[in-house]
Amino acid sequence: MQPGTPTATTSASSATSATSAPPELPTVTLAMQPGLRERLFAAEDLDRLATVARVEPDVLHDLTSPAARDVLARTDVLLTGWGCPPVTRDVLAHAPRLRAVVHGAGTVRHHLPAEFWDAGIPVSTAADANAIPVAEYTVATILLANKRIWPVAARYRAERRAADWNAVVPDAGNYRRTVGVVGASKIGRRVLALLAPFDLDLVLSDPYADEATAASLGARLVDLETLVATSDVVSLHAPDLPETHHLIDARRLATMRPGATLVNTARGALVDTAALTEAVVAGRLHAVLDVTTPEVLPADSPLYDHPNVLLTPHVAGSVGLELHRLGAFAVDEVARWTRGEPFAAPVDGALLHRTA
Amino acid sequence: MQPGTPTATTSASSATSATSAPPELPTVTLAMQPGLRERLFAAEDLDRLATVARVEPDVLHDLTSPAARDVLARTDVLLTGWGCPPVTRDVLAHAPRLRAVVHGAGTVRHHLPAEFWDAGIPVSTAADANAIPVAEYTVATILLANKRIWPVAARYRAERRAADWNAVVPDAGNYRRTVGVVGASKIGRRVLALLAPFDLDLVLSDPYADEATAASLGARLVDLETLVATSDVVSLHAPDLPETHHLIDARRLATMRPGATLVNTARGALVDTAALTEAVVAGRLHAVLDVTTPEVLPADSPLYDHPNVLLTPHVAGSVGLELHRLGAFAVDEVARWTRGEPFAAPVDGALLHRTA
Repeated sequence: MQPGTPTATTSASSATSATSAPPELPTVTLAMQPGLRERLFAAEDLDRLATVARVEPDVLHDLTSPAARDVLARTDVLLTGWGCPPVTRDVLAHAPRLRAVVHGAGTVRHHLPAEFWDAGIPVSTAADANAIPVAEYTVATILLANKRIWPVAARYRAERRAADWNAVVPDAGNYRRTVGVVGASKIGRRVLALLAPFDLDLVLSDPYADEATAASLGARLVDLETLVATSDVVSLHAPDLPETHHLIDARRLATMRPGATLVNTARGALVDTAALTEAVVAGRLHAVLDVTTPEVLPADSPLYDHPNVLLTPHVAGSVGLELHRLGAFAVDEVARWTRGEPFAAPVDGALLHRTA
Repeated sequence: MQPGTPTATTSASSATSATSAPPELPTVTLAMQPGLRERLFAAEDLDRLATVARVEPDVLHDLTSPAARDVLARTDVLLTGWGCPPVTRDVLAHAPRLRAVVHGAGTVRHHLPAEFWDAGIPVSTAADANAIPVAEYTVATILLANKRIWPVAARYRAERRAADWNAVVPDAGNYRRTVGVVGASKIGRRVLALLAPFDLDLVLSDPYADEATAASLGARLVDLETLVATSDVVSLHAPDLPETHHLIDARRLATMRPGATLVNTARGALVDTAALTEAVVAGRLHAVLDVTTPEVLPADSPLYDHPNVLLTPHVAGSVGLELHRLGAFAVDEVARWTRGEPFAAPVDGALLHRTA
């Protein structure tokens, strides 16, 4: 089926004249958690969406109720967001006109199960737009971790007097240090690109990347063992898959350089939290953790207060106004689709087994 | 006088043969605070220096003792660092062969007084190299400040439970925010260059910059009042001069956007600390402060503990391994001079009244 060929013969959007037929706009339905629409879209982007599609006024929070099925029956495009329920074969059976899914967030693996892909419906994701803030957080925290900003700030706060800071952190600084990026994902690639202006040696480990790809990203391709053992910062950008569970386990943590920093903005399951906590408490490793397992750490975890740790509650991704970037991207994709153009960021369902 | 024309006719460096005259290497004397040489130079850079100059074995910590005058009498090049005493007219009178000063740090205004410049001796500074870490700290903290990382981390640490973080910081994010850079200094320019990849509107205020300069840096030139009143982040990169004292005073702080962040990596005197403290405590402003007045804040200052503040003890500049970048740059400059080449980073003494 040709994307962007509207099949609707009537439109509920305002027809200004009874004598000229209204434009045949496709029907777009929003499906996401309650309250998200208002945060995801700047007013100008919702206005823009309304110029290229008839937008269903109600946002769907479930996809199986009778009311939802009424809406699905006339939906050409689902614009999904966080909290969208799974689009199962049963849901598809009630959405006979559905010709595209545009996701205004990152991964689609939570709401588009294997049975969805059998229908051959094209999918777009704002994962590129969602990668931006994660990469920005990562790069900013790498620069500050290399400068030992958290332990220095903690000590200054505790002691409230001058010190010979060069003696306190003789190994600090972003100069001739090695940063290792685990995973040539969208985020991992962007991290490498953003690190290019700095005096850092960049190494990359990814089972699917080759040396040419690494070189094009300004990095040397190394195996994971080498990366972990030679990097001053190890930054994780791999997907959460069975084979990446505890990718950074006690054994690999033990091979990290003393004083090195582990940065995890990917998924908590990639790291053995107990082993990492032990290494941090021993003063051997530093850490920047935006994700953990469990996602809220136990109240007695030493990671909350340790001066060598920045711990944040899964906010590296799009927050606040950054959600507007996702909304704008999703509207761009719907607009492309209505013009009959290919998606800028199509999702290949066949690759989901090894990506986020 | 031609830079790089050695006038030494003998050299104390090892002559391997009595029949071949040793190469006529200029004499380089290090003048800086005790203990700095070992931190400033990587071993490879000291080795490199010894290939282009005869290096006086003793580092001068004062310039007026009889021993220092002995060394100065045979010195062609002073390689200075932090803690170098002022090179006064009297010092120059005891350094008849002095033909260049290479500073392995930032500003030369503390050790090269007005009377020094009358002698017409060429000067180089590693200020460009020292600007790098300050700009990196600044950019990293701007990105994290816009994402409200410090208040979010503080609240997560205090409460140790999940929250709707988008509701906590609805105005967070690096998307369509305005960052204002005060001062087109080396650091200010580098900050603008490093901010180019991000979705931020950049504005610049500098009494000596024109619109073309600002545009070449990716910024719009605005006056200081406009910058302060319209920026989400105001970052200071102006020199500490009588006319910049309390540049950001209570009146200007009052015109900043509610929730905006003041970043000061320049000099504490640029900001009215009491007025800033009041605005932070009131919850109206956020702050990233690497410099303050006084330089160690009183122990009861609320800035130490406030969740909306990152306070660091003047470490944004070169620390730890970053000192090697300064040392390497200084050795590069000495090497250029000995080859008869112009300095890569000459200092124009006539401009010191308006630069750092």
